[in-house]
Amino acid sequence: MPVPAEFDRLRVVLVATRNPLNIGAAARAMSNFGFLRLRVVIPYEAAFREARSAVGASALLSNAEEYKSVAEAVADCTLVVGTTAVRHRELQHPLRRLEYGARLIRKQLGSNRVALLFGSEKFGLSNQDLSHCHWLVRIPTREENISMNLGQAVAVCLYELVRDAKAAQQWEKLEPATAGEVERITVMLLDALRASGYVNPRRTASTEKNVRRLVRRLNLPARDIEVWLGILRQITWKVSGEEPAG
Amino acid sequence: MPVPAEFDRLRVVLVATRNPLNIGAAARAMSNFGFLRLRVVIPYEAAFREARSAVGASALLSNAEEYKSVAEAVADCTLVVGTTAVRHRELQHPLRRLEYGARLIRKQLGSNRVALLFGSEKFGLSNQDLSHCHWLVRIPTREENISMNLGQAVAVCLYELVRDAKAAQQWEKLEPATAGEVERITVMLLDALRASGYVNPRRTASTEKNVRRLVRRLNLPARDIEVWLGILRQITWKVSGEEPAG
Repeated sequence: MPVPAEFDRLRVVLVATRNPLNIGAAARAMSNFGFLRLRVVIPYEAAFREARSAVGASALLSNAEEYKSVAEAVADCTLVVGTTAVRHRELQHPLRRLEYGARLIRKQLGSNRVALLFGSEKFGLSNQDLSHCHWLVRIPTREENISMNLGQAVAVCLYELVRDAKAAQQWEKLEPATAGEVERITVMLLDALRASGYVNPRRTASTEKNVRRLVRRLNLPARDIEVWLGILRQITWKVSGEEPAG
Repeated sequence: MPVPAEFDRLRVVLVATRNPLNIGAAARAMSNFGFLRLRVVIPYEAAFREARSAVGASALLSNAEEYKSVAEAVADCTLVVGTTAVRHRELQHPLRRLEYGARLIRKQLGSNRVALLFGSEKFGLSNQDLSHCHWLVRIPTREENISMNLGQAVAVCLYELVRDAKAAQQWEKLEPATAGEVERITVMLLDALRASGYVNPRRTASTEKNVRRLVRRLNLPARDIEVWLGILRQITWKVSGEEPAG
């Protein structure tokens, strides 16, 4: 499937990344989520294109564009967003939580190019880098350990961009059994209980009601009905020494 | 800040992980998002507790509980959820997208322990492992590269668990300038334009209206008003050779 046009408008920009394995990991996450345009600004190791961590993303990595400055790397984008772990860099920029920032990015991507910047592993984006950004986004990490691994931060940001609250419930569910099927199970279980002597003959009526409720609380899926019937039939047969009923 | 009680009920269970660096990366993401209970089932390398990738999460890693089987690792949990990249493992289990699955997990965590299982880097969870799960969750990766790096997958799943759509908009924004401040800028800019000869004296009235609209489209933040006034005052002074107005 081709990448959606909106996704193709995002530029993931890695600035001064030190470890080429992290560039590879970022590339892998990009490929996982369908963002194929990577830009790197003065990476610490020139040999980043060979990073083995880019599983399934070697083409993406070899197509990465290299720049000498942030200014050049973001020149063709109408929105430039920096990522930061810091909560209050004296608020030179509006700082948005990822959940909301991603919504604004998606809106822009509908018609314009957006650059999403990630700084170096140790220092993040410098104030100089940040001065090219319209605003900043932060992942909601906890105070005690705010700084994420670079590849993981890229993965989380891109996940938030592809996240689809509406599609979420369209999961393939197991068809529930019909009331008729559940009742067949109930009858067969009662047979097994009678055969095994579990049912006290003087209290049959109340046991029947209890067992009926018991079985209904199981939420049996339709696909398991035949297996359960088979199990109960076998048990009844074994316990009673009788031929199992149809 | 203490970890919320709900978060403390999650057990992240790594099954048969091969690379100890991935266990460390998982631990780091757990610490970032506030889930501190790690369990490992027969990790390939016993020395995983020294993984350098567990930045800020060494305590979490050394507190990790080791198990010999999935059954033991999930025994005290009321909900067991497996992660998978596969779309249709012949549907032995209900398969939920992460966006929706995480909602169900959060609900359970309100009162019960939940185990979230991640399989080995190469093979994921085996069918044997999956048979301990109530249902499966998948991250919405694209068909062409469905399989994520383990540490990144853990980060994305935990992010979805802490994600807060409502908190998202509480970002620290720059106060917009008042209409009075914007008008001061307009007046000063018009002074500068007159001094520099930009304004055609015969068309002053229409220029004034155009400039007023121009300035309003800037969405000036309150904090920048004084700086802009200073800049315009200096320009006017330099261009006209006159003393700048108060």
